[in-house]
Amino acid sequence: MTTAEKGVVYLVGAGPGDPELLTLRALRLLETADVIFHDDLVPEVVLARAQRHALVTSVGKRCGSPRITQAGIHALLIESARAGQSVVRLKSGDPLIFGRAGEEMAALRTAGVRFEVVPGVTAALAAGAVLQLPLTDRASASKLIFCTGHHADGKDAAPIWSGPLPEDATLVVYMPGRDLDRIARDLSQAGVAGDVACCAISHAATERQSWVAARLDGVKRMECGPAPLLLVVGRTMEPLLTGKAMPGDVFLLKEVAARMQENLR
Amino acid sequence: MTTAEKGVVYLVGAGPGDPELLTLRALRLLETADVIFHDDLVPEVVLARAQRHALVTSVGKRCGSPRITQAGIHALLIESARAGQSVVRLKSGDPLIFGRAGEEMAALRTAGVRFEVVPGVTAALAAGAVLQLPLTDRASASKLIFCTGHHADGKDAAPIWSGPLPEDATLVVYMPGRDLDRIARDLSQAGVAGDVACCAISHAATERQSWVAARLDGVKRMECGPAPLLLVVGRTMEPLLTGKAMPGDVFLLKEVAARMQENLR
Repeated sequence: MTTAEKGVVYLVGAGPGDPELLTLRALRLLETADVIFHDDLVPEVVLARAQRHALVTSVGKRCGSPRITQAGIHALLIESARAGQSVVRLKSGDPLIFGRAGEEMAALRTAGVRFEVVPGVTAALAAGAVLQLPLTDRASASKLIFCTGHHADGKDAAPIWSGPLPEDATLVVYMPGRDLDRIARDLSQAGVAGDVACCAISHAATERQSWVAARLDGVKRMECGPAPLLLVVGRTMEPLLTGKAMPGDVFLLKEVAARMQENLR
Repeated sequence: MTTAEKGVVYLVGAGPGDPELLTLRALRLLETADVIFHDDLVPEVVLARAQRHALVTSVGKRCGSPRITQAGIHALLIESARAGQSVVRLKSGDPLIFGRAGEEMAALRTAGVRFEVVPGVTAALAAGAVLQLPLTDRASASKLIFCTGHHADGKDAAPIWSGPLPEDATLVVYMPGRDLDRIARDLSQAGVAGDVACCAISHAATERQSWVAARLDGVKRMECGPAPLLLVVGRTMEPLLTGKAMPGDVFLLKEVAARMQENLR
């Protein structure tokens, strides 16, 4: 297997949190990189796979101690690569979805620094796996839509969807924030029926995962877990409300916890 | 790491083709399962990771030799699990996206067979990685939409999108088929501007990958590679046409080919 090359930046997806959902390539790069810059959401069990002398630095912007700007991250990546180090930029989930990788790639291009992207399992896929429900379905969901409740500065007032939302879609809202009622109103405006099933899943595919489900009309009364949170909306989630799904969640939840503890030892 | 349990069916995503994009968990299950039922798109280098005495069977429906029905696949999964075997149902990409996993899970539930879903890297994420372009962007693409050109029986005449398509979206069409002109007309009808960038990528993240790009107006003149094909539409693909992206593709393409040959040895 190929190892991390000097002078190259690897934009790597760490997957949703469960270390077993790292790709082989992501693990190999983690194990061989000189420098790792990671988001806050990447768990300790994943970072523990770095080699002992690697420099592992959080560049997370949400709850990290010293605040760092996006431009600051670009400078760190460029300087490290120019200093001849192999650099992993580790993002939770997939690097190309809601991760500002576009800006980082543009900066690296301008600086003439070589880079490579390693895709990862994005949170929506992990959520479907945990819930044991499909995200598309030949009968009821021929489209899958990812959007975000968290907009670029100044755009927070925009609805998450404008115009009619197709009826045969599963919608996944990344980072919906705490105001699920506002999102439910936006969706209602976009024509989503009040009886469509919704699931809010917190920390999917980690030992802290939990989920609650309700119909769109009842979303405001849902007591959901802490961020990172995903809101999944669509007919594919219906079995959560009619009890037709197996409570496989409990089985998986225990398993993930056991595996993460084992990896920590 | 946990190994495949007897009497359980694992619906596993094999990722886009590059064996290094398997998750650690997918690899471990492949290496320990008694029986593996796989789609046609899962490459030989991935299947080669099965243990020597495992029964590895193609249940692909597109170009496999003996045709098998969806109900036939359900029966095989259920019988094998009931016979006390550990079963991997291996699907290319992620099992929950355009893979009929919903039907398989429903059948397993009805039969009382325990199952687990292991998510994988879906083709769209691999395409973005190969192209070195983001799928979402804070300025131009706050939504990512997956749809399919291949509909359930009798629905092939339906447009791939009805109603207005949001301007700030990246759209990925899975299995667009050969009639890209029809898809371009559908998108034009949905309000997509004629100068929006489109990329058709064939066999993303395999040694046979290739891509071509054009503006929506010119899609009908694109000469794209063979299936599996993805059509990516949106402002995020613009650098392919303005030459602002690095030709990183060539670098990656050679790498993937070398790695796959190495794994075959």
